[in-house]
Amino acid sequence: VITIGDGKRGDIGNTADMYARSLMDGFKFTAATVNAYMGEDSVRPFIKDPDKGAFVLALTSNPGAKDFQYLKVRGKPLYEHVAAKAKRWNESKNIGLVVGATRPVQLKRIRQLVPDMPLLIPGIGAQGGDVKLAVRNGCDVHGGMALINASRSIIYSSSGESFAETARSVAGALRDDGVLRAARCAR
Amino acid sequence: VITIGDGKRGDIGNTADMYARSLMDGFKFTAATVNAYMGEDSVRPFIKDPDKGAFVLALTSNPGAKDFQYLKVRGKPLYEHVAAKAKRWNESKNIGLVVGATRPVQLKRIRQLVPDMPLLIPGIGAQGGDVKLAVRNGCDVHGGMALINASRSIIYSSSGESFAETARSVAGALRDDGVLRAARCAR
Repeated sequence: VITIGDGKRGDIGNTADMYARSLMDGFKFTAATVNAYMGEDSVRPFIKDPDKGAFVLALTSNPGAKDFQYLKVRGKPLYEHVAAKAKRWNESKNIGLVVGATRPVQLKRIRQLVPDMPLLIPGIGAQGGDVKLAVRNGCDVHGGMALINASRSIIYSSSGESFAETARSVAGALRDDGVLRAARCAR
Repeated sequence: VITIGDGKRGDIGNTADMYARSLMDGFKFTAATVNAYMGEDSVRPFIKDPDKGAFVLALTSNPGAKDFQYLKVRGKPLYEHVAAKAKRWNESKNIGLVVGATRPVQLKRIRQLVPDMPLLIPGIGAQGGDVKLAVRNGCDVHGGMALINASRSIIYSSSGESFAETARSVAGALRDDGVLRAARCAR
């Protein structure tokens, strides 16, 4: 089981190095989410150890994604430039991208651009993303490499004594929904 | 004395809200640095209280700044688009921009674009930025609104018993250097 520290870190090299140590060595996460606005030296410390990794924010699931991520640079949206750089930095094969399930069309396009990279896909559940589309458009040719996560729809599924059961049921339904689609996707 | 939590936060609205509460209500910072790649809803929670504020990363001091921040969008570098959006979000006059002292020419240009906004200017000292240029190009027409910070050159100035004196001396020299220049700048 891999664990991902979703801290969206992004800082100058020497500080990024400390953040990576804190998340990887301290909290023992396998990977962390990273905001690459500050560029390569803000990402490098998270991918130094080939057994650890970084998920670089490409196209996020929230409304504000439209403010900068879609801006066109040489005819292509900024998030594609981020994806291209991340692909270039990926010598150790331990970089993935964050792409929101709320952007199914763009998700499909990004999967074409990075056929082998893992995609971390939030936005299912509370944010309204469709798990079937996320699986169909996010998985690789083998029907894998798509990490689809739901948070609030599960952890806030009940505040009463029924929490354990309710959370299990919501998570299970989502999983089954996704697994069914993944089966079709891999055919 | 204002205090700034330099966490470079940036997340979806509901998480950003929790980060803002943690930094403002928990740690009692006056302001926080914010990475706006995720757009408006990732910044809003930090500026909701007019007595608190956010410094939005525009052009950072590190080498990686060149990877995305200089990309041209409609003829202008990305960091100018970030500055323009931050200016538009600034109804409560509690947003500033982060601009590295290592980019003195661009600093001057950004000051022209946002004549009234506070600028947080890192990169002095260990990163090699020039404090005189930072003051000259970063301050407003009244010779103010430029927060120039040095960290490593002061906190790592000595590891021995002389720390207090050495740190004081380094900080004082930097301050005097900047103040002298500010006096000329305001004339």
